[in-house]
Amino acid sequence: MASQIDSVLARLDEDVEAGLERLKALLRIRSISTDPAFVDDCRQAASWLAEELQTLGFDARVRPTPGHPVVVAHSPEQSGPHVLFYAHYDVQPVDPLALWQSDPFEPVVRTDANGRTIIVARGASDDKGQMMTFIEACRAWKTVTGRLPVRVSMIIEGEEESGGPSLPGFLAEHAAELGAADIALVCDTRMWDAQTPSVITMLRGLVAEEIEITCAGMDLHSGSYGNAARNPNQVLAEIIASLRAPDGRVAIPGFYDDVDEISPGLRAQWSGLGFDAAAFLGKVGLSVPAGERDRSVLETLWARPSCEINGMSGGYTGEGFKTVIPAKASAKISFRLVSRMDPDKVRKAFRQHVERQLPPDCTVRFTDHGGSPAITVADSGLELGRAIGALSDEWGKPAVITGSGGSIPVVGEFKRLLALDTLLIGFARIDNNIHSPNEKYDFESYHRGIRSWIRVLGALSSPPSDADSGPALP
Amino acid sequence: MASQIDSVLARLDEDVEAGLERLKALLRIRSISTDPAFVDDCRQAASWLAEELQTLGFDARVRPTPGHPVVVAHSPEQSGPHVLFYAHYDVQPVDPLALWQSDPFEPVVRTDANGRTIIVARGASDDKGQMMTFIEACRAWKTVTGRLPVRVSMIIEGEEESGGPSLPGFLAEHAAELGAADIALVCDTRMWDAQTPSVITMLRGLVAEEIEITCAGMDLHSGSYGNAARNPNQVLAEIIASLRAPDGRVAIPGFYDDVDEISPGLRAQWSGLGFDAAAFLGKVGLSVPAGERDRSVLETLWARPSCEINGMSGGYTGEGFKTVIPAKASAKISFRLVSRMDPDKVRKAFRQHVERQLPPDCTVRFTDHGGSPAITVADSGLELGRAIGALSDEWGKPAVITGSGGSIPVVGEFKRLLALDTLLIGFARIDNNIHSPNEKYDFESYHRGIRSWIRVLGALSSPPSDADSGPALP
Repeated sequence: MASQIDSVLARLDEDVEAGLERLKALLRIRSISTDPAFVDDCRQAASWLAEELQTLGFDARVRPTPGHPVVVAHSPEQSGPHVLFYAHYDVQPVDPLALWQSDPFEPVVRTDANGRTIIVARGASDDKGQMMTFIEACRAWKTVTGRLPVRVSMIIEGEEESGGPSLPGFLAEHAAELGAADIALVCDTRMWDAQTPSVITMLRGLVAEEIEITCAGMDLHSGSYGNAARNPNQVLAEIIASLRAPDGRVAIPGFYDDVDEISPGLRAQWSGLGFDAAAFLGKVGLSVPAGERDRSVLETLWARPSCEINGMSGGYTGEGFKTVIPAKASAKISFRLVSRMDPDKVRKAFRQHVERQLPPDCTVRFTDHGGSPAITVADSGLELGRAIGALSDEWGKPAVITGSGGSIPVVGEFKRLLALDTLLIGFARIDNNIHSPNEKYDFESYHRGIRSWIRVLGALSSPPSDADSGPALP
Repeated sequence: MASQIDSVLARLDEDVEAGLERLKALLRIRSISTDPAFVDDCRQAASWLAEELQTLGFDARVRPTPGHPVVVAHSPEQSGPHVLFYAHYDVQPVDPLALWQSDPFEPVVRTDANGRTIIVARGASDDKGQMMTFIEACRAWKTVTGRLPVRVSMIIEGEEESGGPSLPGFLAEHAAELGAADIALVCDTRMWDAQTPSVITMLRGLVAEEIEITCAGMDLHSGSYGNAARNPNQVLAEIIASLRAPDGRVAIPGFYDDVDEISPGLRAQWSGLGFDAAAFLGKVGLSVPAGERDRSVLETLWARPSCEINGMSGGYTGEGFKTVIPAKASAKISFRLVSRMDPDKVRKAFRQHVERQLPPDCTVRFTDHGGSPAITVADSGLELGRAIGALSDEWGKPAVITGSGGSIPVVGEFKRLLALDTLLIGFARIDNNIHSPNEKYDFESYHRGIRSWIRVLGALSSPPSDADSGPALP
């Protein structure tokens, strides 16, 4: 197997430029899932992927859901270890467009100020670029050996960026087909740093809510009504202000009831990571952490729940000035969950908190934008150990096991609906500007990401041996 | 003079429908002053007015300013009482457009659910409809008598709705030309109720500010940064929440220092107006006043300062959801001023209050959107008494003297730069939806507004007599 892996890696190194054209074709598709204006683009991205996978010998099809379609693919291998690969073809909106240095949907490969070759486009990192590292690894295996080293199934969805509701139903309906794998692999996360690969074992959950406050039945003139009429902007601001205490804690009653303290062992491991909080914040122009004061930044990101105001809008927001008291104001608010926090319970507590503060003459409308519990991936096991080994081989240093502040709801659904553990292995970097203007993916992430997956797929194909007996934690 | 007035009124009644076509032509011009996209439309409105006034014999010209142009017109009369009429040709933006039942710039004259004939369009009331009541009154006098009963100058500006900065400079530069009048007349206010005309003697001033809070140097993913990164939406909400105390008072230190209590006499007069606060709020779907708890609603509207959040925006506000921590959040905030409050002092106190609350890593940028002090028009004098008499004659009941919560900055500038008192006489109604979708003007307001001005102009033309010796206050 080791010599086969070397052959595949060598062949990949020769052909890697050709794969860039395929990635660019995918990046040109405007698959913004949250905006109904792009529904056809999402379908186009799914079709493109299905056709691409068919050329690699997969039985690949675009499958309908109540929302954006999913792509499901199965390799022709009939026996041996079996992985289910997950990614998403949808991307975030691109606003504010004015801050992009190039068209977000016309990918540019260029050298940045540090001499690094980068791929710039919406989705270059999250998640089209990352997804293609796995697909190109499959291509390299297929080209050199005529087959894949393990059975590979894939599910690639189109509602990850919009908290879309369709995937759990699809997974439940096709649990027998999709749950036949031994383990799930997800490529939607970062390396620990630019040269240190990681496998993530803790993910925060999410509750996404929208609230709309209505006061008067129409917009009013602030001269004619100022003081007399309740102003929903003011009401909304007071509600939002009440969500965080001055010490950085979320101030909703009972919010921390189901939050467990992390173990001393895990705390020690994280301390050993050498995380530089000042540098982490400094890179984005900040210096003082905004979360709970008595916790490390890494702990507040990986193991503590949060409350963030993702959007806020009310009244006149165009150029110039309009002396209006609007009828309505609204906000998009999300909570990150950890350990045993239940999304439904958090949502209910939030809504009760809002309703308790509502002044007279105001009504509130809540919109549920989805949610998922936090999950913890088992930190031992054959596949994790082999993946750690393969990643360490590729990058020439031990891969680390970490947490992540972001939510990947599907990991929880894989556990709940398919009884599958998931290995989260990604090659993105902290400065990839995901969800922001000028999103990029380093060519090194792309190239060595493919190489990493070539090694992981190779490692997973071997029968169990003495090498598997050591602990997965380095 | 009385028989002349009757002749002019009779002729107007015959021709009133013809004037509607002129008003509709003006209403079709999209003169939204706050949005640079409509700069040509503003110029077009000014040109239309100058040409219209030229047909009435005025020396009327479009005059440049650093912003939108003004129209200045002088009637050919060389002696006698001299009035300066002010109005504005610009209108408010039309958003939210979806709530309009007809195109805001395609005026519709129709019968409403109460059987009243109404003119529906942006600006139908504020201020194109009101402005045309005066111009059509001039036309009626001219048609019947061949001249105007008094000397009339006009200044019609295009930045009233945007707090534009150009007019004071123009007035200062042309003070000799414009300040030659004896009194200014403004038609931009409401009647006390649908059948009771009023002259307004108290106007609140205005301070308009925009604040933009910046935290990180770019938009961030709320999974990767939630808890660690300061969120400008949260910061802005906390600042806004700090502006009002739970008892309805504005909570900026020193805010009420220069606010005088109204006199017992004025308080008694206002009590006698029979203002129905419950009905006033009920018409817009409210029931509990939001201002200071120990003051009457009328007092909080006319004689107490306010702080209103006119617009608020940050992060993702489109459809669906985006888990972003934005780099910036902003708000448009205005203060209504009364009695001796100084706009510069209020602005400075507000800015200091905001800066004091700014957490680490945040910066704030302030934008001055203009301001003006409150003004109190002298409640006695020959012109006020005659106007009260003329209005009482037209409407068959005593006209009342009132305050207004809205700001008409030009009235303060007329006093400061031209040494002119102003009579505020308007025919709008509370349900005109000014600044809101489906703005309208009643045909009765339009018709009897013209009739009222015919009478006021006639009354102002007579030499002083015994009839002027009574008090203006009824």
